Amino acid sequence: MISSSSRSQASGRIRSAAFATKVMSAEEAVGFIHPADTVAISGFGGAGTPKAVVPALAERIRETRATGSNFTINLLTGASVTSQTEKLLTEVDGIALRMPYQAESTARKKINDGRMDYVDIHLSHVAQQVWEGYYGKVDVAVVEIAGITEDGELIPSSSIGNNKTWLDVADKVILEVNSWVPAEMEGMHDVYYGTALPPNRTPIQLTRVEDRIGQPTFRVDPAKVIAVVETHGRDGANPLTPSDGVSQAIAGHVLDFFAHEVRAGRLPADSLLPLQAGIGNVANAVLGGLDRGGYKGLTCYSEVIQDSMLRLVKDGTVAHASATALALSEEGIEELTANIDFYREHIILRPQEISNHPEIVRRLGVIAMNGMLEADIYGNVNSTHVMGTKIMNGIGGSGDFARNGYVSMFLSPSTARGGTISAIVPMVPHVDHTEHDTQVIVTEHGLADLRGLSPRRRAHLIIENCAHPEYRPMLHDYFKRAEAQPGAGQTPHLLGEAFGFHQRYLETGSMR
Amino acid sequence: MISSSSRSQASGRIRSAAFATKVMSAEEAVGFIHPADTVAISGFGGAGTPKAVVPALAERIRETRATGSNFTINLLTGASVTSQTEKLLTEVDGIALRMPYQAESTARKKINDGRMDYVDIHLSHVAQQVWEGYYGKVDVAVVEIAGITEDGELIPSSSIGNNKTWLDVADKVILEVNSWVPAEMEGMHDVYYGTALPPNRTPIQLTRVEDRIGQPTFRVDPAKVIAVVETHGRDGANPLTPSDGVSQAIAGHVLDFFAHEVRAGRLPADSLLPLQAGIGNVANAVLGGLDRGGYKGLTCYSEVIQDSMLRLVKDGTVAHASATALALSEEGIEELTANIDFYREHIILRPQEISNHPEIVRRLGVIAMNGMLEADIYGNVNSTHVMGTKIMNGIGGSGDFARNGYVSMFLSPSTARGGTISAIVPMVPHVDHTEHDTQVIVTEHGLADLRGLSPRRRAHLIIENCAHPEYRPMLHDYFKRAEAQPGAGQTPHLLGEAFGFHQRYLETGSMR
Repeated sequence: MISSSSRSQASGRIRSAAFATKVMSAEEAVGFIHPADTVAISGFGGAGTPKAVVPALAERIRETRATGSNFTINLLTGASVTSQTEKLLTEVDGIALRMPYQAESTARKKINDGRMDYVDIHLSHVAQQVWEGYYGKVDVAVVEIAGITEDGELIPSSSIGNNKTWLDVADKVILEVNSWVPAEMEGMHDVYYGTALPPNRTPIQLTRVEDRIGQPTFRVDPAKVIAVVETHGRDGANPLTPSDGVSQAIAGHVLDFFAHEVRAGRLPADSLLPLQAGIGNVANAVLGGLDRGGYKGLTCYSEVIQDSMLRLVKDGTVAHASATALALSEEGIEELTANIDFYREHIILRPQEISNHPEIVRRLGVIAMNGMLEADIYGNVNSTHVMGTKIMNGIGGSGDFARNGYVSMFLSPSTARGGTISAIVPMVPHVDHTEHDTQVIVTEHGLADLRGLSPRRRAHLIIENCAHPEYRPMLHDYFKRAEAQPGAGQTPHLLGEAFGFHQRYLETGSMR
Repeated sequence: MISSSSRSQASGRIRSAAFATKVMSAEEAVGFIHPADTVAISGFGGAGTPKAVVPALAERIRETRATGSNFTINLLTGASVTSQTEKLLTEVDGIALRMPYQAESTARKKINDGRMDYVDIHLSHVAQQVWEGYYGKVDVAVVEIAGITEDGELIPSSSIGNNKTWLDVADKVILEVNSWVPAEMEGMHDVYYGTALPPNRTPIQLTRVEDRIGQPTFRVDPAKVIAVVETHGRDGANPLTPSDGVSQAIAGHVLDFFAHEVRAGRLPADSLLPLQAGIGNVANAVLGGLDRGGYKGLTCYSEVIQDSMLRLVKDGTVAHASATALALSEEGIEELTANIDFYREHIILRPQEISNHPEIVRRLGVIAMNGMLEADIYGNVNSTHVMGTKIMNGIGGSGDFARNGYVSMFLSPSTARGGTISAIVPMVPHVDHTEHDTQVIVTEHGLADLRGLSPRRRAHLIIENCAHPEYRPMLHDYFKRAEAQPGAGQTPHLLGEAFGFHQRYLETGSMR
């Protein structure tokens, strides 16, 4: 089954002769993956997902099922892989257990129907938990890379995610060498090899966003590499849409807050502190507002770099950006490639274990800005479960940053689905970030600074500053009646109607 | 108001002449504390609470109130101070804002009645948040110490807590020199002065429990020291009661789990990994079982050291124990003093910022064992709010250890109040530790290892292994009906009866 020498490489990206002999087709490579295997693949924010082996695996699973046999795998990733990948494997019922993050509708439905196991954990915990053996043996790693050096080291692709760990722990390794990834990206990555399991861990000597503490390539034991598959496929990130009024209003409140904190002497005036922002319209609007805020030489320590960051880096608003994935559109990739020598000095990609590491996030004092589904009047945040039961995506890295950052902000429009859902509710039916970890809540209506406030004071502020005006009277009414009970407690609630908003939505289609 | 030279020191503990001139009575010293001041005092797990100034302050507040004037302070501590201290200040309505932890019934009632603001935050976050200015200016620090060196450095008392930070940030400092604290404790402490605010933070170079990275004393600017008060008062920790059958059963499951993890190659056989255990009967039973487990040379990286630890250290079961407080009974103090040269080699007290630091807890791979009020069938844990509304104590350091430890365990008897309260419920009405942070739940009935399990699988395990048999049918019934709904979701719930157990208890006095 090993490839014949007749299939020589097409791309010139495989500079090691030992690896060149292992080139084969994806269809051949998936022959090494067996039912019940735990398969760990590359991919974070869609970027760097294997392009060929997973579709071939889905096809093999489909064929196997057609013969009446069962074929499922446990699938581990960095974070979200491309929708196409998630969908293909889900449609053939190919996944028994999925970990640690997904963001695709087919998978989501299957998980919510109880037909696919999904474990939703902090992204900074994934590598260590797999290494510690919490998920059993990893049978096969499938990792996209940009090339292989003469010495057999691997040049990372557009994301790093957990690839270092997958290559280390897997019994067998399948490499996808993707010639679409600009060869010029070589040198952007910083792969840290200093992690260990306790009791052998040592301090991670990173003190600034721009520090390089590792090496630009992955190591792999060549004996474990059973196949090398050549591909040429784009990552497929879509260009960002221009931000809307709601996102811009949220961004405005965030920028006002930064200015306020600078005036209070709690943030450095020019450079603030390293910024972390989630993905999407709101995060994009916040980042987009930074250059209008007159900031220069900012830093970002985050998970994913999107197109908007390139502009900020180019105009000097952001001096250094660190992440684990470059989720760029085709235009973004072109811009990156055309000015790669410039961007390589300002952008670093790291393993997600480092991009999200509690030790580093706390040390750097990251300003954490994450989206949410909803917050309650006391500051508990639901990031994952619609109406408390149905998973949306997953907690991702939000907890890594919110718990350990200098200040922890959650941003959301005040309503969803045409105003039928309020993002501020009496009690959230699922908690991903507790009251102890939420310091600032922002909607288009305003910002609630919860630092140093007891729960009852938080309630007033969140309702008045953040809730949509239409929902404020209902929220005030709930709080007032809860507070009026004898011995109402530190955190007054009416247990019988704490989920009244949600139940009303489920019954009538609106929280109103 | 400064003391005359006639009141010379009685204890001989004040070896610096400059400080000796500042000796005065507690009644005189509290003249420096003004209404609306923020007062930061020493005290952690009761240990090292100031003995004289706080009672004098309470008396002064009482007298001021008698004249019709208002007098409240904001009170910051390490964690819990002695009950007497908490009670005295609460009874005179002396506290406007309390932070970060209390464990006393008078204060608890006032907080729950909405008559005292209480902010309940992670203990590792306190020092940095105060330093960052989230609580405004600290006007006065009142810190108990064991003595003052010739050079004006301060020898810590039986706890360190946040004292380093209080001494650094307060405008004025009142020192209580307590001659009850054995002078021989000098040298046990390791006060780390390497912390900073971002962007100036650097790695904390601690890699083993026994590492010393600081100095044995506190520094203080002598110009800020406005008073030195001499005291001779015991901390007042009570001797531990022998553990009961329930605690011993829980301990047995924990020890079995350790053995299981060792066999699976996930824990080092002889020394395991550093242990953290909360306070109380269950923690005591777990620690008490360690020497029967045949372990030698274990380490503990925790908050509080109680009497039981001395025995483990003495017989070699524990080689090194690190904490921020020594909450010993009178007998414990005698044992410590009689063998101080031995114990000083095996016990280290650190600032709580370091004892609970996410960076260190993760690096060391701490085995985190904390108590809880209740857990739900999906692994969300309530540590703080009885029936979701009334604060008990506070989150303390449990989140610091649970989030960042190697394995995160929550331990509790399966029922409380004569069986009328189940510690396993359909949904917890307050979440302090999310499903993402809970890996193992233990009651006297068994242990649920939740690692790598999706929520529905967790539910089966928690109900079967941990719930009291009497409550299992009700919990199974809830889960079964929740799961049977169309599109039940990743985490099935019936929002209308998620708190049915709690509502039943509130209405009938029993969850049954």
